[in-house]
Amino acid sequence: MFEKIVQMSLLYDFYGQLLTKKQQQVLGLYYNDDLSLGEIAEQLGVSRQAVYDTIKRSEKLLFEYEKKLKLVYKFSVTKKQIEEILKIIEKIEHNKYEKELFVLEEIKKIQDIAYDILEK
Amino acid sequence: MFEKIVQMSLLYDFYGQLLTKKQQQVLGLYYNDDLSLGEIAEQLGVSRQAVYDTIKRSEKLLFEYEKKLKLVYKFSVTKKQIEEILKIIEKIEHNKYEKELFVLEEIKKIQDIAYDILEK
Repeated sequence: MFEKIVQMSLLYDFYGQLLTKKQQQVLGLYYNDDLSLGEIAEQLGVSRQAVYDTIKRSEKLLFEYEKKLKLVYKFSVTKKQIEEILKIIEKIEHNKYEKELFVLEEIKKIQDIAYDILEK
Repeated sequence: MFEKIVQMSLLYDFYGQLLTKKQQQVLGLYYNDDLSLGEIAEQLGVSRQAVYDTIKRSEKLLFEYEKKLKLVYKFSVTKKQIEEILKIIEKIEHNKYEKELFVLEEIKKIQDIAYDILEK
């Protein structure tokens, strides 16, 4: 469940603005505020079934946007690459008294990753 | 005009998959293959006005997606940051016989930019 919440939350961050205000409201209450279907139904004055349908419909839309645009996936790849750059920097800083050649080799790696990000 | 083509091309890269196949086809012929309205109309067997309407409608949709999601804008900011990282690396490489402190200061700058990208 936790993993699904993280995934839905990312999809919502990227594509939430493409949903209707109503769909955004229901998904927000469900995933961000962690309300139950019954609680959302009560708060909005609609049936539990209507809330359930809105959530399923909205989730389906978010998955369809991701299937078409793959932005969450691309973002996660870039994020990993930037984290890799940060790891290399840490390595350089921890080895700063090592010989210069080491630093230049590591810098070259950062350069390769940066070019890779730009080419995507 | 050239600037508009670049902008539409970027918008199309990001959001094109959200258009219908027909809209994608017409925009592709117009912006990528550089055909005139008349040439597209002839090729698709529709009126020039129909082609014009499809292009205007599709462009409006792409601009609306960008207004809501701002992904092209965010991408251009990240691109500039990565280019900045590459410039710093070049500077380090050109100054490799300088003292070590210089390299570490520059590395620190790359680190700051990388954190900045992750936090967006």
